[in-house]
Amino acid sequence: MGKKIVVIGGVAAGPKAACRVKRLMQDAEVTIVDQDTLISYGGCGIPYYVSGDVSDEAELRSTSFHMVRNEEFFKDAKGIIVKTGTRAVAIDRQNKTVKVEDVASGNEEVIPYDILMIATGSKPFILPIPGVDLDGVFTISDLHKAIEIKDRIAKGKVDTAVVIGGGAIGLEMAEAFKDLWGVKTSVVEFMPQVLPRIVDFPMASMLTKHMRDNDVDIFLGEGATEIIGENGKVTGLRTAKRTIDADIVIMAAGVRPRSEIAVDAGLQTSPMGAIVVNERMQTSDPFIYAAGDCVEVVNLVSGKKFYAPLGSLANKEGRVVGDNMAGIPSTFKGAVGSFIMKAFDVCIGATGLSRDVALAEGYDADVALTAPSDRAHFFPTESIVCFQMVFDRRTRKVLGLQGFGPMGDGISARIDAAAAYISMGASIDDFGTLEMAYAPPFSAAIDSINAIAYVADNLCDGRLRKTSLGSFLSWMDDFSTQPDWLALDIRHPLEAGPFVEKFGTAKWLAIPYNEIRAHHEQLPKDKKLIILCDAGTRSFEIQSFLDSIGISNTKVLSGGFNMIRRIGVDWYPE
Amino acid sequence: MGKKIVVIGGVAAGPKAACRVKRLMQDAEVTIVDQDTLISYGGCGIPYYVSGDVSDEAELRSTSFHMVRNEEFFKDAKGIIVKTGTRAVAIDRQNKTVKVEDVASGNEEVIPYDILMIATGSKPFILPIPGVDLDGVFTISDLHKAIEIKDRIAKGKVDTAVVIGGGAIGLEMAEAFKDLWGVKTSVVEFMPQVLPRIVDFPMASMLTKHMRDNDVDIFLGEGATEIIGENGKVTGLRTAKRTIDADIVIMAAGVRPRSEIAVDAGLQTSPMGAIVVNERMQTSDPFIYAAGDCVEVVNLVSGKKFYAPLGSLANKEGRVVGDNMAGIPSTFKGAVGSFIMKAFDVCIGATGLSRDVALAEGYDADVALTAPSDRAHFFPTESIVCFQMVFDRRTRKVLGLQGFGPMGDGISARIDAAAAYISMGASIDDFGTLEMAYAPPFSAAIDSINAIAYVADNLCDGRLRKTSLGSFLSWMDDFSTQPDWLALDIRHPLEAGPFVEKFGTAKWLAIPYNEIRAHHEQLPKDKKLIILCDAGTRSFEIQSFLDSIGISNTKVLSGGFNMIRRIGVDWYPE
Repeated sequence: MGKKIVVIGGVAAGPKAACRVKRLMQDAEVTIVDQDTLISYGGCGIPYYVSGDVSDEAELRSTSFHMVRNEEFFKDAKGIIVKTGTRAVAIDRQNKTVKVEDVASGNEEVIPYDILMIATGSKPFILPIPGVDLDGVFTISDLHKAIEIKDRIAKGKVDTAVVIGGGAIGLEMAEAFKDLWGVKTSVVEFMPQVLPRIVDFPMASMLTKHMRDNDVDIFLGEGATEIIGENGKVTGLRTAKRTIDADIVIMAAGVRPRSEIAVDAGLQTSPMGAIVVNERMQTSDPFIYAAGDCVEVVNLVSGKKFYAPLGSLANKEGRVVGDNMAGIPSTFKGAVGSFIMKAFDVCIGATGLSRDVALAEGYDADVALTAPSDRAHFFPTESIVCFQMVFDRRTRKVLGLQGFGPMGDGISARIDAAAAYISMGASIDDFGTLEMAYAPPFSAAIDSINAIAYVADNLCDGRLRKTSLGSFLSWMDDFSTQPDWLALDIRHPLEAGPFVEKFGTAKWLAIPYNEIRAHHEQLPKDKKLIILCDAGTRSFEIQSFLDSIGISNTKVLSGGFNMIRRIGVDWYPE
Repeated sequence: MGKKIVVIGGVAAGPKAACRVKRLMQDAEVTIVDQDTLISYGGCGIPYYVSGDVSDEAELRSTSFHMVRNEEFFKDAKGIIVKTGTRAVAIDRQNKTVKVEDVASGNEEVIPYDILMIATGSKPFILPIPGVDLDGVFTISDLHKAIEIKDRIAKGKVDTAVVIGGGAIGLEMAEAFKDLWGVKTSVVEFMPQVLPRIVDFPMASMLTKHMRDNDVDIFLGEGATEIIGENGKVTGLRTAKRTIDADIVIMAAGVRPRSEIAVDAGLQTSPMGAIVVNERMQTSDPFIYAAGDCVEVVNLVSGKKFYAPLGSLANKEGRVVGDNMAGIPSTFKGAVGSFIMKAFDVCIGATGLSRDVALAEGYDADVALTAPSDRAHFFPTESIVCFQMVFDRRTRKVLGLQGFGPMGDGISARIDAAAAYISMGASIDDFGTLEMAYAPPFSAAIDSINAIAYVADNLCDGRLRKTSLGSFLSWMDDFSTQPDWLALDIRHPLEAGPFVEKFGTAKWLAIPYNEIRAHHEQLPKDKKLIILCDAGTRSFEIQSFLDSIGISNTKVLSGGFNMIRRIGVDWYPE
């Protein structure tokens, strides 16, 4: 008889490790225990199940060849014993046993192990506010809750919804409510932007505008203070500023590692409670592995440990656990934290560190912005995409990349290439020559990822001097904040004309890009020129030229009007 | 007055370098000479101009902000002198001058330089066969030819077309003729597959089938022997096997570096005539740079020099030239040869070395194949994608990746990530944990690129034993070639049933995947089992299980029926 392997947790990392180790050691006795009755599901698919894109929850628990991954499947196809409805209560490391409890009957059992894996996942963070126990308040933490949410909507019981938390799950749920079901939906986010720490202000602002354009109300910088109800049922949500009606409240305020059993067993955990593992996913007890949302992993950019509860990482970590349990010393070196999300007709993605996180980590971080075509600009399906690169000025290392563009795989292509490159320590210069497969239907000869690296290169070397989007927007709101600024709009006269008309030549001077060399004598010497075009590229060219003739009091607005239009401003001429 | 910089060639690398160096050194006098009158165009867009996706050739010569890049544009916007219709005749390195000739008048002029750049591009390879000078025989080498081709089609003068060469340009032109204009189109390729050396047999076969399904005739392993005509006009093409009618013949048999002027000047060139440059794109004369289709660069996989005439590389190399001419020591380290192409409703991409090239280079090369979902299999827009990974068994280095799937950016995402990773020397194990941004609308929790790495890992460690697609197809054509083989079809009985019925249980045994553990006693011991499923994944699981019970005379068909269906076979049951 082979080794006894016990896996606690049957969603992602656990089953992956169990199946892998069983394949590698067919004589092993592999047992998965899970307190839930529904296991091995794609939790990231829940918003799409609620929206109706996925019609049946069983699809989330099925293989690509349409078998439901239940106890019978694991037994017949995989040779693995699965005990559902079975909660692991305690680990006895001395005697190498796990005490489990049948959730329904309360009966206890002691299961011996040679090797143990903890894959207990995460638990939703419950805000410490009144009303969280009201009927109609949900977290997105398992399939049962998803089924109940969809059931309520499908039965017409939900006219209004509030989502607490503008992270990925919250925004995906908001789209699900609004898009298919037409539920009046609001998102309340405590931080001043959506997707905090994942993307920075410009990207978050474009996403917010797009969601608002699709009738999702988004309230930023507002914490939920109370969930209110009547007769035990939720009726709304209060913030410091308003009360919002709600038949349903989704609490999507982040997750925490579910690691009590590891803590109780004396395994090393991080201050936030994540289980500490090495590259082979071993805990501080070499006979116990852990993976998935209950562990922390190395951030391949910063080199520090971080908490990255992502289903895609859980599966990769799980395979590494399976290898190691079978004696193959595979390693999981870490992650860069890649992220992508659909929101109505757009998608937003990121990898590596955001500017805010990079600054907090002590990097000499700066950002490059641009907004070029996603493929050959003459190809019919061309669209504008917006990218922000985060880089370290001192080492020229690329720390992160964020992208916003039309729904499709074009943003993925750049984010994924960046993730591969960043995980290998690539610099701005590497990104400048990164070889994206080129044909006009797919990319530009100078791909957007090269273009953003060129911007970073010019910034890093001090050739390009920019104003921040925030400073520019402040000035546009109130010219008196920077009385000596003058917009130099180098776009086509048809584009620049309405701005000159609205703001006057004292604030808005228009000279087309291709006429600056001939007519630069029209430029005032006593003003700071804010050079404006669509993407920022032409503006940099003009800044370089003006420098050469002694007009150096200039700044470029990177990303230009392509980005401004997507962020949405109230001063845009009709 | 600043330095005199002269650039020979005004299509891609030349203008890029000229504009960059002018930005960096505004006092430089930068001159571009080009023998053509139309310059700075996207040559890769020609098939899309011919197809009508791009309506006007001027779009190929325009900026993203819709200015035509002509002499006036370069002068006004960039401060660069462009002399079109001006052929560079000779370089006098001693006196640092270039002799140029006005193509129309024959007048000669001598232009002095401080720094020179050669960006003369490539010239089409003209097959040494009779008839190449007939009216109606075209190469795709400049915009004038493209304009004339489209003009002939638009005027209804083209009913039949033959393309010589099944490379990217040839296939793109074939699609252009067929798709929009309904021209009866044939492709003749000398090698036994399309896209030779770029992709391997399985990928090429799927593409061939898709193009044939779209009514493009493709004749493989047939060299053009003669172009035939009447009254000086082309009427058809002969191969050893047939004569094909043609009102137009496109010769797309590859390109060669256009480097005569460099050779005459005594600069170092490769045996095939490509100009030799260092990482800073300097030729053997430090005052002369070269870039684009006239140079060879380092292959970042093999470390050897190779010829990669791609517009995307030309632009990146051009920027490096511009930097260096201005004293910034930027480097172009090399390329991995990324490739992507649209063909009707599919796309095909590749990066790094193909198996055939890797074997020729002396690697211990092997391939992994798989055909999984391109995103969460429960997401409505899911499709099957086929990937082949080329790896070195000895070092576990990934040498290349090839992908085939539905038209869109999904293949790009994997090819681009692979290009970034391969250029950094990534191994199979790195690919196994490569972090592709995950959400169900974009990818699977275990992305297809991880899945193909898992296959490679299992192959490399000897856990997975496969039969080649070629061997399997041969056996299906004639069972007597391998009399002891038996197909073990583990798909759903509804899928496997028709095969059992057609081929009989002596050749085709069907036991569903999830019943093998219970019913393995049905398996004969005296046969070699070829295990078959849709992608190959389940087959590997079954192989592992059978190994553990002593049935080890088995092989897996990687890629399975997902790939077989896309390649197209005549034995498929109705």
